Amino acid sequence: MIIDKLFESVEKNGHVCVGLDTDVEYIPKWVINKNTSIEDAIFEYNKNIIDATLDVASCYKVQIAYYEALGISGLMVYKKTLEYIRSKKAIVIADIKRGDIAKTAEMYARAHFEGDFESDFVTLNPYMGLDGVEPYLPYVKNKEKGLFLLVRTSNKGAEDIQYVDTKEKEKVYNVVGEKIQQIGEQCMGSCGYSSIGGVVGCTHVEEGIKLRADLNKMFFLIPGYGAQGGKAEDVALYLHQGNGGVVNSSRGILLAYKKVEDGEKNYAECARKEAVRMRDDILSKLKINS
Amino acid sequence: MIIDKLFESVEKNGHVCVGLDTDVEYIPKWVINKNTSIEDAIFEYNKNIIDATLDVASCYKVQIAYYEALGISGLMVYKKTLEYIRSKKAIVIADIKRGDIAKTAEMYARAHFEGDFESDFVTLNPYMGLDGVEPYLPYVKNKEKGLFLLVRTSNKGAEDIQYVDTKEKEKVYNVVGEKIQQIGEQCMGSCGYSSIGGVVGCTHVEEGIKLRADLNKMFFLIPGYGAQGGKAEDVALYLHQGNGGVVNSSRGILLAYKKVEDGEKNYAECARKEAVRMRDDILSKLKINS
Repeated sequence: MIIDKLFESVEKNGHVCVGLDTDVEYIPKWVINKNTSIEDAIFEYNKNIIDATLDVASCYKVQIAYYEALGISGLMVYKKTLEYIRSKKAIVIADIKRGDIAKTAEMYARAHFEGDFESDFVTLNPYMGLDGVEPYLPYVKNKEKGLFLLVRTSNKGAEDIQYVDTKEKEKVYNVVGEKIQQIGEQCMGSCGYSSIGGVVGCTHVEEGIKLRADLNKMFFLIPGYGAQGGKAEDVALYLHQGNGGVVNSSRGILLAYKKVEDGEKNYAECARKEAVRMRDDILSKLKINS
Repeated sequence: MIIDKLFESVEKNGHVCVGLDTDVEYIPKWVINKNTSIEDAIFEYNKNIIDATLDVASCYKVQIAYYEALGISGLMVYKKTLEYIRSKKAIVIADIKRGDIAKTAEMYARAHFEGDFESDFVTLNPYMGLDGVEPYLPYVKNKEKGLFLLVRTSNKGAEDIQYVDTKEKEKVYNVVGEKIQQIGEQCMGSCGYSSIGGVVGCTHVEEGIKLRADLNKMFFLIPGYGAQGGKAEDVALYLHQGNGGVVNSSRGILLAYKKVEDGEKNYAECARKEAVRMRDDILSKLKINS
């Protein structure tokens, strides 16, 4: 089960998930100038960030939208980036948030678990219903693949649907979380978590404690640290015995160089330092809690 | 406003939205054999279906998952298919069901309203919240683009989230529908509908009547006809004064040739006949209702 690999990676490297949401604007000018195309510059930038963070990252998350925005040539960089991460034996989460059903979901599973865009985990959106998860299960059960389904996200608008009060349970996201955990029981790793995880933003303290308790078999992909206001002590609530989740940072790591004088020249080194700082920040709060 | 163009197209050609969910397996062997690549065969097939249905289709819906499954070369066919439809002055809905927020949503808007994958409408998933719609609004307001947000889909699993009973309103999909209609008021066309429409499956009769009444400014993209069990009389409930929605059929049209002896040779002609039959089927039920 792929979740065991991710669990081990957290034990070894800490919780940081390096988010490669690489906007062209993030790339230092000198890197763009020395390359013959924007796409080559993006790949060089990604490659250097990956090389600099391999031993401090639990995994990488690549946000496909940034590549899709550049059309075919952007998706070729996306492909190369995934291939490079996998060639380094690191774990890659394709942040695609696809959500569809039946044969269309089958097609998405094929797109992102085989061929050009093969990844280890994909993020999925459950709004259409959990029958949309079924086409992915053969990959999860037999091909070392995993899923992270959106449960509760960290944006303001999450209140529109996810926080709607339901008659039966507390909120829509509680209903969704429970259903996903139930499906996940078919794909349990020996680490105690399922290869079907959940995306859970690290905001709202009381909710964090309850969510971790309710969804005790679910591994969390946790956005919202840093730029979005989440602190290490918040994140710690979503972890359990020092594991059970990875914490994404994209801009915080990619743009760390902007906070350092002459940082542009050593952007990858700056990214590494920020990843180390973040790892230690989270680990320190776990020690206090345990 | 793009919605006025779609409204006029329905007035002129009827309600049929031709779904180009082109699986390689749907393409007759002889078409595959005469082409030098699978991708060329898919494009030829799409092109012939488009040419044969231009005057009986209100619009085309291209399901990106089928192309994404083939990786980079599949997405090149996707690009060519969109370009071909637009070159014929027909309206194309990119069925991408993306759903994200902030800068990521901006990137998806750029990906599908500009450049390689430019379309007229995109489908979106609202689960993360309606703040995810904002980055698309400049395109809707100023660039003749439109959206269809998932409200209530026609699959069994729709019950998992969309049908959850809420405390305030009836069901999650009612809450979602109302919020989307509210946002849509910023982008009203002169036809009386907004360029922000909704995806509403044509099942459950009583619900159809209520949904049409509640969401009276929302143009519907209606899946579920034919293969999924929806009948023309069901569809008619979701329309209003003969307009206000388009009805998708993918396999019903693409595979019409399989129901005809020697149909393989004339697959495009068979697709046309099925589109005509479907158009007239829906129109006949509207006449009974009005």
